[in-house]
Amino acid sequence: MIKSHPGNYFEDFRLGQVITHATPRTVTAGDVSLYTALYGSRFAVQSSDHFARAIGYRDAPVDDLLVFNIVFGKTVPDISLNAVANLGYANCRFLAPVYPGDTLSAKSEIIGLNENSNRKTGVVYVRSTGFNAAGTGDTLSAKSEIIGLNENSNRKTGVVYVRSTGFNAAGTAVLEYVRWVMVRKRDEGAPPRGKDVPSLPKLVAPDDIGAACPPLRGAAYDHALAGSAQGFGDYAPGERIDHVDGMTVEEAEHQLATRLYQNTARVHFDQFIQGKGRFGRRLIYGGHVISLARALSFNGLANAFHIAGINGGRHVAPLFAGDTVFAWSEVIERAELPDRTDVGALRLRLVAAKNRPCADFPDKSGEDYDPAVILDLDYWALIPR
Amino acid sequence: MIKSHPGNYFEDFRLGQVITHATPRTVTAGDVSLYTALYGSRFAVQSSDHFARAIGYRDAPVDDLLVFNIVFGKTVPDISLNAVANLGYANCRFLAPVYPGDTLSAKSEIIGLNENSNRKTGVVYVRSTGFNAAGTGDTLSAKSEIIGLNENSNRKTGVVYVRSTGFNAAGTAVLEYVRWVMVRKRDEGAPPRGKDVPSLPKLVAPDDIGAACPPLRGAAYDHALAGSAQGFGDYAPGERIDHVDGMTVEEAEHQLATRLYQNTARVHFDQFIQGKGRFGRRLIYGGHVISLARALSFNGLANAFHIAGINGGRHVAPLFAGDTVFAWSEVIERAELPDRTDVGALRLRLVAAKNRPCADFPDKSGEDYDPAVILDLDYWALIPR
Amino acid sequence: MIKSHPGNYFEDFRLGQVITHATPRTVTAGDVSLYTALYGSRFAVQSSDHFARAIGYRDAPVDDLLVFNIVFGKTVPDISLNAVANLGYANCRFLAPVYPGDTLSAKSEIIGLNENSNRKTGVVYVRSTGFNAAGTGDTLSAKSEIIGLNENSNRKTGVVYVRSTGFNAAGTAVLEYVRWVMVRKRDEGAPPRGKDVPSLPKLVAPDDIGAACPPLRGAAYDHALAGSAQGFGDYAPGERIDHVDGMTVEEAEHQLATRLYQNTARVHFDQFIQGKGRFGRRLIYGGHVISLARALSFNGLANAFHIAGINGGRHVAPLFAGDTVFAWSEVIERAELPDRTDVGALRLRLVAAKNRPCADFPDKSGEDYDPAVILDLDYWALIPR
Repeated sequence: MIKSHPGNYFEDFRLGQVITHATPRTVTAGDVSLYTALYGSRFAVQSSDHFARAIGYRDAPVDDLLVFNIVFGKTVPDISLNAVANLGYANCRFLAPVYPGDTLSAKSEIIGLNENSNRKTGVVYVRSTGFNAAGTGDTLSAKSEIIGLNENSNRKTGVVYVRSTGFNAAGTAVLEYVRWVMVRKRDEGAPPRGKDVPSLPKLVAPDDIGAACPPLRGAAYDHALAGSAQGFGDYAPGERIDHVDGMTVEEAEHQLATRLYQNTARVHFDQFIQGKGRFGRRLIYGGHVISLARALSFNGLANAFHIAGINGGRHVAPLFAGDTVFAWSEVIERAELPDRTDVGALRLRLVAAKNRPCADFPDKSGEDYDPAVILDLDYWALIPR
Repeated sequence: MIKSHPGNYFEDFRLGQVITHATPRTVTAGDVSLYTALYGSRFAVQSSDHFARAIGYRDAPVDDLLVFNIVFGKTVPDISLNAVANLGYANCRFLAPVYPGDTLSAKSEIIGLNENSNRKTGVVYVRSTGFNAAGTGDTLSAKSEIIGLNENSNRKTGVVYVRSTGFNAAGTAVLEYVRWVMVRKRDEGAPPRGKDVPSLPKLVAPDDIGAACPPLRGAAYDHALAGSAQGFGDYAPGERIDHVDGMTVEEAEHQLATRLYQNTARVHFDQFIQGKGRFGRRLIYGGHVISLARALSFNGLANAFHIAGINGGRHVAPLFAGDTVFAWSEVIERAELPDRTDVGALRLRLVAAKNRPCADFPDKSGEDYDPAVILDLDYWALIPR
Repeated sequence: MIKSHPGNYFEDFRLGQVITHATPRTVTAGDVSLYTALYGSRFAVQSSDHFARAIGYRDAPVDDLLVFNIVFGKTVPDISLNAVANLGYANCRFLAPVYPGDTLSAKSEIIGLNENSNRKTGVVYVRSTGFNAAGTGDTLSAKSEIIGLNENSNRKTGVVYVRSTGFNAAGTAVLEYVRWVMVRKRDEGAPPRGKDVPSLPKLVAPDDIGAACPPLRGAAYDHALAGSAQGFGDYAPGERIDHVDGMTVEEAEHQLATRLYQNTARVHFDQFIQGKGRFGRRLIYGGHVISLARALSFNGLANAFHIAGINGGRHVAPLFAGDTVFAWSEVIERAELPDRTDVGALRLRLVAAKNRPCADFPDKSGEDYDPAVILDLDYWALIPR
């Protein structure tokens, strides 16, 4: 009997399949400290129990992206161990705060399968229909390079659409998101399967994003301690913010992070195999890039303390150790939340670039990105009104 | 008066001497998080308080090897600061679970001394009588290279046999093991001392290995969350398991780990001195290799959640930063524990190799190891029945 | 409106200005574990709750330098983001113990401003009037190189003197210190400002240094567990101690540390910009050097468990990744504390060197330091009597 699990292939998934992922994880103050050491995040709500309690949280909540990365990590052995590329995210919502001591577990449902019947992966080019690509069937065509390819495989692939949910020990959902990944087929000669491409929202509705933020006592929110006087009304759609600072990434750092999330994707850890592959390098986990860019964004968005939802996101190009990450943000829109006068939502586009300061906002022109851009993320942040 | 301690030499030890080691250490959730970040371990019992409590633990216990490494670290300043090589382990038993908040301390007793009267260390070749080498007097002869040599010393050496015990703050022993190390003599002209080589068991008896595992409520053990359906009855003696994944080690990682264990052995930290030595490199602490290999072994042994005893072990060759570690296991035997129907024991051989995937199980032929092999460990793991 | 903060320039400070720094921080067991992993510190009081409680602490207190580094980190975005050099420290006192769970915040008062009216920074040479340089106006002249320069700026600079205080959530001051930094002017043509150079003590008085140490039950202090039998009476003024061990620093390590302290100074993180600068390298945060040297000093000062005050200190030369740090100490004087028979104070000079063992105590001759010296710190340590 085979004991070690080589990961699932495209043929192993069926529409409607529900997978309970292994290794529940108690999140602790130790994880929070490591997260701080890895990214240098400075949002007061997540950094100080005293600050968080004053405004209405039970304690300082665990950083939203630490929760995301832990839940994501659980899905990897079942979903994306044989992935060629992580194509996109949609409809990500944070549903309840997570505190140290909470135990997280995860389940996933297969909500779509789309075979790339006559396309081989050798060199695959991937295009997103936009930074909030909603995962329609046309997400694959020629433009920019995929980023998860770890060998020049000639095997056929398919796209798997997955809705993953993270739960605390009480069974309350704390996070839900959809991602779609390009997965290898085990057997190239296997008969083709149909196309089941789910319809996904291009945007998480403002009605759906406040659940993980308790009602805040706005008067207790100390803007000096938070690091900025600027609130909801100070940000205008179209405004661009350069986050100024750059952060160089080391191999030890992204490996520590990715293992902290118990993410087992081999491409991040195994230089022996990666050294023979296309890039000759270990790929840095995309969630590490998102966390880094978010931490940099404190400088300009100090009060946008909570990621309430992610509308879409795309890893435009790979990041490698030794590269320096810079970031900028654009305010896309401003939304009120139903029945809430304490906080409002900013829809933000967070763009990260490598080895290129962002004072002039490197961007895309049509479908062509500035070659330095590595991440284009569209999310909702809550900010006091 | 000399204030800083240069470490003990062979002449400083006497048979029957008991040493109380310095720096008691409260183990915390922070240590557990770092351990996860360093190795990516995924055993559910150690990862989730909720899972552990459901089956009968007070909380998620601290990983057995984190306990081992912390206790081992305390012994280094007194036992092995002037060691040329760490030759072997025997009769290692985990005696009580350790939880975050417990304070660990350690004592050692010198149980054997064996002078290498006419042998100098220049280039020393070390042979173990087998992976469960029991420390008899013939453990030194010509075959494979020793791994702890940090200078081409011409000074004579001796082998020191030590039984070390770790305690919690209540004075309960949590771990006991024997190791033997080759230690330099301070004065080559010192008169020779006798040979006192202890008799050591080649195997920890199954009767002796269940103490650190409370009675389990087997029905509450969730195999989906644990990551595998395979239990005691599914593993057969002779079976070999490739653990598939590879993990590249960085200097910062093994240094962080070794300092976390408050292990002060200079060979792991001081590139200035090591750069002038035999390897030109910092040596990676052997306990780091064991922890890495054990974490990799989850993929194939997901339910073998507890290391209950270590029969013997050997660091066959050194590991350096930049190397990628792979591992495979062999089931040696299967044993029932007296009066326990909840768990059984698998005697496993865990072999780690560097820069060589283990699909074909690199091994030894007679006394000659495949040159990629770095670790050969013989241990008992508990697994639900 | 500009959202991201580029840091203050010399013109932005006014005498008497009080700044509330951002991002309060709850210190946890996770931070303590990371601190251990980063430096390998082995002082029993900070390592073991059981040991600390036995002698009179509520729990194991957080390492003094972890507190210092966290408080220091909070001041960086407001005080030293545009600093050319961190010139010195004075009158640093630890005022109350800090335990995991405490939330730290910081305020600073500008207590001096001194424009360097006709000096440009291109290559600036810095001299301290001694290791306990008290910040008089003559601290700048030609001798050794400054260490924080991150570009060959031709802009004028000024020296800003700041008294920073760290508080716990109850509003109790836990730490107070003065530092002075050379900061760039935004506008070279701005009219000169006066000289306001504060008078600073060259020495923290022994009357002022016991506040963070509760009355100790000396009989409960276990010297075997602490790692040394040597107490207050065993150290004599003039005595020098080589701390023997060397520690090589990796980029990932100092970045993890500096982010753990939420210190945002760009010179430590941004290789893209630093690579084009004077050194071509990221500079290692000075507090990382102090913490490393202090951890090495355990070997020789195992019972000097508490840094009660820092009289002065100077970063003599920069440290870069790949360098190996060694350290030695000199006992300057021994002082009794008023009304305390439990502990006495040792005034110690802690000198760190890079890539040079310290058996022969590399030092300074007049104002010229041995080229290997990187740190010269003058502090008070408490030690049982």
